[in-house]
Amino acid sequence: TGISYGGANDQRRAGPVEAAKYGAVAVIVRSLTHAIDNYPHTGGTTYNANGINIPAAAISTKAANLLSSMIKSGPVKFYLKQNCQMLPEVLSYNVIGQITGTSNPDEIITVGGHLDSWDLAEGAHDDGTGVMQSVEVLRVFKALGYKPKHTIRAVMFMNEENGARGGQKYADLAKQNKEKHIAAIESDEGGFTPRGFSFQALPSLVKKISANWKSLFEPYEADGLITGGSGTDIEPLDQAIPGIMLIGFRPDSQRYFDIHHTPNDVFENVNRRELELGGAAIAGLVYLIDQHGFPAAN
Amino acid sequence: TGISYGGANDQRRAGPVEAAKYGAVAVIVRSLTHAIDNYPHTGGTTYNANGINIPAAAISTKAANLLSSMIKSGPVKFYLKQNCQMLPEVLSYNVIGQITGTSNPDEIITVGGHLDSWDLAEGAHDDGTGVMQSVEVLRVFKALGYKPKHTIRAVMFMNEENGARGGQKYADLAKQNKEKHIAAIESDEGGFTPRGFSFQALPSLVKKISANWKSLFEPYEADGLITGGSGTDIEPLDQAIPGIMLIGFRPDSQRYFDIHHTPNDVFENVNRRELELGGAAIAGLVYLIDQHGFPAAN
Repeated sequence: TGISYGGANDQRRAGPVEAAKYGAVAVIVRSLTHAIDNYPHTGGTTYNANGINIPAAAISTKAANLLSSMIKSGPVKFYLKQNCQMLPEVLSYNVIGQITGTSNPDEIITVGGHLDSWDLAEGAHDDGTGVMQSVEVLRVFKALGYKPKHTIRAVMFMNEENGARGGQKYADLAKQNKEKHIAAIESDEGGFTPRGFSFQALPSLVKKISANWKSLFEPYEADGLITGGSGTDIEPLDQAIPGIMLIGFRPDSQRYFDIHHTPNDVFENVNRRELELGGAAIAGLVYLIDQHGFPAAN
Repeated sequence: TGISYGGANDQRRAGPVEAAKYGAVAVIVRSLTHAIDNYPHTGGTTYNANGINIPAAAISTKAANLLSSMIKSGPVKFYLKQNCQMLPEVLSYNVIGQITGTSNPDEIITVGGHLDSWDLAEGAHDDGTGVMQSVEVLRVFKALGYKPKHTIRAVMFMNEENGARGGQKYADLAKQNKEKHIAAIESDEGGFTPRGFSFQALPSLVKKISANWKSLFEPYEADGLITGGSGTDIEPLDQAIPGIMLIGFRPDSQRYFDIHHTPNDVFENVNRRELELGGAAIAGLVYLIDQHGFPAAN
């Protein structure tokens, strides 16, 4: 699902700038979702500072089907009125909670999600669930009386949706303050049944980590470590902190694009058990890193 | 989830007969679900033909929490009125559709779900989705123009919930008619994201099947064949047709007991994409069996 979305979303993101070159006066995009419903699925659009910037809007898949069938019967008039605007920048903040490590307090493991959401929904799965799972790691450790060796930070990043400025600031400050970071984990793909973790590292290293932890995973019939991306908010740490391991939480993805950036992204569509399983999986991974670290890359 | 339900449901199934021995006049059981909600989760209760059979009812988890807190504060009066009854038996039928095999028409692969449902819901996941996925196997083969070598039967079993009589009849007739059956697959664990298949066979044979199909699975990063049970409706075939391979479809199970045997088991709680993925997975398995069969057990 993520790969399909990644391959299709240039139509929405870059479509208006491209269409304007050919004389388009506006762009209507069919929502990028598998679901046939009445919920427009929106997202970022990249405009050109020096070009002609035409209006753009996403319509629901049902509305797009209707429009397509009408166009087949002859010319169609489409009335488009928008009242969206860019407001001035305002000051906002990341929110951070941490348990300071016992033996290695200056070495940090970050786990986070983002506080902001797209405008037309609560942002329950994008990314309320990631925020709650990050806080849950600290709560689980406290509830169990587990005192981590390393400092564990739960970070609620601000402004993922409009430029990932909170993630950039966190990385900038980490570099400026010469902080030592072992790993950062992000949950920003919905609060669904956990399937594994994606490591932003060489496949050979990910294989080595899987091999090191094999005996710990086997009693639970678990595996699920793959090579891949991590998360938008932690990605700037890759440049800022050489050697940090960036990890993305990978839940079951099948319902995500029914919900993501639509009015369906509400609390009622979060399943408590699925959310809790994800929080437990992330807490388990943070524990493993705290206890065992990572093998050397070569 | 299934193991927990299997371990706990003797409280509901056998509780009334046991409690009656100690003088209980009725039994109230807390719904067997992880969800804290207002939906009673019901199911079969086994009575003793020769014993004292007392009334029994399931109440929702929220109602059970309230009742528990009230009992802690002192004696409680509980008023219970029921109007359920066993009606006389009536004649009903399994519904069967098939594509007759080209080269081995007398060798049958059965894929099925059950038509009936528990009384208080539509039975969308239990087992409307299994029924639709079974029919979908035939539809997919027709749509692709695939003509199977063996006869593929989609069976909508009648009366799974009250004694599995449809499954028993299907097995009885198969034996009586000396039918040859290669395999039977059941989908009766909900229409959620497919996770794999459970083979009712020796672990050594399941390993051999996995090894034989490894090169076919690898392009899709698939595995997911495990040893275990199959399904209530196809289980009688095990005795009736020696050598048949019984297989259960295993979807993600985390939401199942929020829904199973409750008023929540409605069409609106079926996700189209998840349902279709399951149908496609089952069609893929039937294709593999039709093309490649199974290796010898030893």
